[in-house]
Amino acid sequence: MQSFQLLAEKFTLHFDKKHFPEQPASLYSPNEYFLGLGGKRIRPVICLMGNELVDEINPDAWHVATAIELFHNFTLIHDDIMDQAPLRRGFETVHKKFGENTALLAGDVMLVKAYEYLGKIDPAVIHPILHLFNSTAREVCEGQQLDMDFEKQEEVSFEDYLKMIELKTSVLLAASLKMGAILGGAGQRNQDLLYQFGKKLGIAFQVQDDYLDAFGEPEKFGKQVGGDILSNKKTFLLIHALEVADATQKQQLKNLLASNDADKVEKIVAIFKACKVDEWALQLKNKYLDEAFAHLEDVAVLSKRKQPLKALAQFLVHRDY
Amino acid sequence: MQSFQLLAEKFTLHFDKKHFPEQPASLYSPNEYFLGLGGKRIRPVICLMGNELVDEINPDAWHVATAIELFHNFTLIHDDIMDQAPLRRGFETVHKKFGENTALLAGDVMLVKAYEYLGKIDPAVIHPILHLFNSTAREVCEGQQLDMDFEKQEEVSFEDYLKMIELKTSVLLAASLKMGAILGGAGQRNQDLLYQFGKKLGIAFQVQDDYLDAFGEPEKFGKQVGGDILSNKKTFLLIHALEVADATQKQQLKNLLASNDADKVEKIVAIFKACKVDEWALQLKNKYLDEAFAHLEDVAVLSKRKQPLKALAQFLVHRDY
Repeated sequence: MQSFQLLAEKFTLHFDKKHFPEQPASLYSPNEYFLGLGGKRIRPVICLMGNELVDEINPDAWHVATAIELFHNFTLIHDDIMDQAPLRRGFETVHKKFGENTALLAGDVMLVKAYEYLGKIDPAVIHPILHLFNSTAREVCEGQQLDMDFEKQEEVSFEDYLKMIELKTSVLLAASLKMGAILGGAGQRNQDLLYQFGKKLGIAFQVQDDYLDAFGEPEKFGKQVGGDILSNKKTFLLIHALEVADATQKQQLKNLLASNDADKVEKIVAIFKACKVDEWALQLKNKYLDEAFAHLEDVAVLSKRKQPLKALAQFLVHRDY
Repeated sequence: MQSFQLLAEKFTLHFDKKHFPEQPASLYSPNEYFLGLGGKRIRPVICLMGNELVDEINPDAWHVATAIELFHNFTLIHDDIMDQAPLRRGFETVHKKFGENTALLAGDVMLVKAYEYLGKIDPAVIHPILHLFNSTAREVCEGQQLDMDFEKQEEVSFEDYLKMIELKTSVLLAASLKMGAILGGAGQRNQDLLYQFGKKLGIAFQVQDDYLDAFGEPEKFGKQVGGDILSNKKTFLLIHALEVADATQKQQLKNLLASNDADKVEKIVAIFKACKVDEWALQLKNKYLDEAFAHLEDVAVLSKRKQPLKALAQFLVHRDY
């Protein structure tokens, strides 16, 4: 079992190459630009770790990990269009730099490229991998749609938001891990436990993401701090604040949500702090992390093989970027 | 060998069902709406015909044909966003009816659904099918990008336009036929000849499409007549007109292209007629049809088995909608 760090370096060496032809450059250079912005590569590496948990890395796992990372980048390009996000990883988003139509098409072709890598794997495992990849891809789209739907609703329950996050974020982490486990030859029970571990970890990961949007340090975070607040995105923080705020604070929050004040972010963050939303979020994150670890505990492999996954989970929920 | 008509009826019976879950309805009802608008179903049926040319229909051909039709509909939904098209098949486009973000996501999930059907086929044939499907899908995206690039160029050569049309339109017809042939067990030479037949047929098909945009009868055509002209799309007609027009006509054309006159379509069509672009287009169409038939002639199967494909080709290039 190799550490996340080591596997991430190996994956980066494998992944950081041109994935697209030269021409037409108007289509493919936006793709290479976006991939060149880097990223944490968590999903592909967790796939490799899922494989290594049970056996040596299957050569097909590199193809599947690459497909997963391309799929993730496809979702980012399209989500950035939908969210009208100006920045991604501190740089201009594809639609800002190249226009919306090109970004739309660049995303499409990124998704097709993901399937090109899946098309390389051994026919003996292609059915379970494609099945899981496809159902997960659809769920991620469902999550993004719910996310957009929620922007138009005045209030969203914690349960509905949780369901959306599971679809939009958790299932891809969970499926990445499970695909790795499938390629490593894991049995059904271990596959399922790893999927559950990934799902809970994904929720903890999103709590941290929501937390960083409001409380992160701009120079580390990469994205626009307060981006969720400016676009009136429902987040774990906002939903909880609306639940625990007193009548005055709740009214202030609603007024701020309806406004475009220059200090909207600052004022909403101040209410979050007054309601101790920051402390609550850290507790919530740890709750899901504990649940994730309970599933990992039950996976029937030697305990020491689980160390790298545990370390990764700790890193993901304590990162500041 | 069954006729296009008969196979189209069988395909319609097979295809006209719900392809998506009920929830979230905000995502999936736009998909069902768009599929419900119907269509000529040419590409999936030509896949079935490619199969039947060589052998009885392989059950997997229905999955592949379904994937092809879903892929085609994915491209239409996204192209309509990029082209800002108000109508498709006489009805509101998805982005007009449901908003651009939902249309973007509905297209994405339509593409994923296509791969769900591909994921059902026998692992013994999945590699060649996925390989051809993926490379074709990327080529179609390349064609759409070139099409958008050309809109910004003042002049486009006939050769460049032809290359774009091959990518955007022809390769999907060609690949549909070839995938059917692969599933029917055709040898490599027959597969390649059918691909060439499909490619030439695709060009003739597009010539007719461009022709109908300017000279079609609105009540039969379904789309907005003159839509290409209004969006300054380079077409076979416009490119040829700019080549053969005299200096006065050429200047008039350029002025009209730069304008948004209420009678822009009418005036440009009048110049097309004065330059005999309509007659030229019909000849061009027949040239490519003849070339297509020469390839079909060389396919090593009994001549009578080719009749339905010949009849379909005739229908496609003489249709008025």
